[in-house]
Parts: sequence; C-alpha cells; structure tokens
Amino acid sequence: MKVVFALYEGMTALDLVGPYQVFAIAPGMEITLAASTSGPKQTDSGMVIHAEKAFSEVAGADVIVVPGTGQPQAPLADKVLLDWLARASPKAQLTCSVCTGSLVLGAAGLLRGKRATSHWAALDLLREFGAEPVQERVVFEGSTVTAAGVSAGIDMALSVIARLVGEPAARMVQLGIEYDPQPPFNAGSPAAAGPELVQAVKQWLAQSAPGVLQL
Amino acid sequence: MKVVFALYEGMTALDLVGPYQVFAIAPGMEITLAASTSGPKQTDSGMVIHAEKAFSEVAGADVIVVPGTGQPQAPLADKVLLDWLARASPKAQLTCSVCTGSLVLGAAGLLRGKRATSHWAALDLLREFGAEPVQERVVFEGSTVTAAGVSAGIDMALSVIARLVGEPAARMVQLGIEYDPQPPFNAGSPAAAGPELVQAVKQWLAQSAPGVLQL
Repeated sequence: MKVVFALYEGMTALDLVGPYQVFAIAPGMEITLAASTSGPKQTDSGMVIHAEKAFSEVAGADVIVVPGTGQPQAPLADKVLLDWLARASPKAQLTCSVCTGSLVLGAAGLLRGKRATSHWAALDLLREFGAEPVQERVVFEGSTVTAAGVSAGIDMALSVIARLVGEPAARMVQLGIEYDPQPPFNAGSPAAAGPELVQAVKQWLAQSAPGVLQL
Repeated sequence: MKVVFALYEGMTALDLVGPYQVFAIAPGMEITLAASTSGPKQTDSGMVIHAEKAFSEVAGADVIVVPGTGQPQAPLADKVLLDWLARASPKAQLTCSVCTGSLVLGAAGLLRGKRATSHWAALDLLREFGAEPVQERVVFEGSTVTAAGVSAGIDMALSVIARLVGEPAARMVQLGIEYDPQPPFNAGSPAAAGPELVQAVKQWLAQSAPGVLQL
C-alpha cells in the first residue's frame, strides 16, 4: 500500500512524524515523503526534513497524509501542492490530515459539505472551505480523515491502520511504539484546560502563528 | 536555556520529534540538533533529518536529549557521541533519553547505580550498564531523566518543561499541541496488551530490530 506524505516549507514536525512513525512500522506500507519539489524542507520550528520526491515523480497514492502548520498561508498558496491533492485524492482510498492540514485539504476543494476537524484554535476556519467543523479527535467522513491538533496524528494513524490493515496490526504498532500516553497534566483540550489557559494560548498564537486564528 | 538533541544515523524519528516539538514551542528554549558530524542523518525508518551542528561546534548544553533507535549497535559504537555525552552531561542541568536512548546514556557511563527506564522490550539490557531497570513512563533520577518507548518522549518533555520552566508553561505547551491522547485501543503497554501481543511484537523485533532485545 502506497502512503504519500505531502510535505511543504513551514509544516509542523510532529504533525508529520507522529503518523509517519505509525505507518512506517505497520506491515505492508511503502512510504514516500513528497513535496512540490524534492529536497530539504524547514519545519515551522526550524528542524529540516527531506522530501524524497517531487509530486510529479510520485506514481500513485493509496493513502495521502497532509500535516498542519503554524503558518497555513504557505501551503494555501502552494498551487503545485493543492493541484496534486485535488488530482491524487479522488484516486486514493483515504486522504488524511493532521491539525491545520485540514485547511489545506479544504483549499484543495476536498472538504465541501463534509464534517472535518482541525487544531481547536483553527476549527472555525474550516467553514471558509465549505466544511462542517467538528470538535473530535479524529473524524472519518467518506474517504477523508481529519485529526485534531499536532499530537492527534498518532491517534489518527492508528485508527487508519486498523481500518486498512486490521485491528491486530494497529495493536502491534501501538505496543511497538509503547503508546501508553500518560500526560503529566490534564490540559490537552480547551475543555480540560479552561478559559484562562485557552486565552493564553490564543494570545501566544496571535503573536507566533496568527494564520491559525485567521486566514 | 540551551537544549541539545543528540542525533545519529539510525535514530527513531518520533523519539526525536516528540520531545523536540514540546521544547520547540516552550518559552525560552534555544534548540540545537547536533551529531558527531553535521548534515543529514537517516532515521531507522528512512526519513532524513538534518543535524545542524557537529558536537565539536556546540558551545554548551543545559539540557541534553538522546533519542532511541531500533538498531542500538550504531550509537553504542559512536565514540564521538559517547565521549561528548560523557563530557557534556556533568555540566548540564538534565540529561534525558527516550526509548533505547537510555542504552546510549548507559554506554556513556551516565547511569551507573541509577534507576532508569527504556523501551519495555529493552529494559533488562540496562543492567549491562550498571543501571536499575524500572518499568515506568518517565524516571527522574538526579540529573538524568529516562523515558519509556518512542511515544513516551512527549510525556517526558512536558514533565521536564514543568520542572525547568514551571507548570503553567507545560500546560500551555500541552494545549498548544492539543495533547489530549485518545488511543483507539488499549495496547500501549505490555500489561495492557497481554502476553500474546507481547510475544508477537518480540518476534517482529527479533527480525526487524534484534539489537533492542540483545546487545
């Protein structure tokens, strides 16, 4: 099964690497890291990760995964990326996103009339692309799968492996990466964090990643 | 605060990127990705991530983070890496590992007589380095912090941020990366997975990553 990760300058590292690690050790997955052009891509925190191929060199994709970013303006203006998604997605079994990657799917016209999720702070922006925002961890809707912010890509990928390969394979991967999460605090969702912390993170985003709050 | 991630050929991508993402958005952290030589390093699943500097170019480290690997033989034979760890760790506030990264700390002589953890399948190997294996998610022991397998680096990094910067900062990071984990299955620890699945993963490791089971 061919799994293509759609990279771009400014993507968030963990949005990519969470699901990458799950797919990479699942059985029968042939993974390609692709982008508009091949070569090094800098993430929004500075780490540089290589795209192995240009989209023009990718033969086909059974599964597509689009990571999110703190600076959505860049992928939303990347015509090569959006055109490839619009052409490749209808032929794929599943097209998946993590975090604000769902805005990229939206800009490629893939979410019209569909339920979808995103980073909690960006959720309302999905309406701009005709999607129906849903605050859930992972949303399966037809052939699209959208995940909540950053770390949600791990949960999403395990669910996708279960769907495509089977639950035993997904459980093996989960034990392989010892995914027995024990967050030291209960602050991972807006509801758990409370209004004061939500406001603090929104203020931080307004300075460091304003494109997550407003297109 | 200077945070140095110690990269090497064959490291596991998520071991590195989980804590990287947490430190990268925490306030006041200056992150360096370093290795024996600077330049591209291939992870054990193929993804290529850049080391920005050679260890010889790193001025100092307040926090050191060592990712694990499915092929521990490589870092355990990397004299430049082990020598740098042995010299830099005593000057750092905290030296941290994820997964079999604790074996690397052990090989650098940093775990003698200390409680430490690792990937569940590699736990007993810690004894070879004079450490006392402990099956816990994150183990703080003096100035060393060891985490369980792969995904445990996220929990570890949040605990370290809380320790070094404060709980409010750690909670902000947790909400920022929407770390509200909802694994679709309960198979992330040996106890939860049960003996049959543990045996299946051990067989898979014996073929794909034998160095995790035996040095």
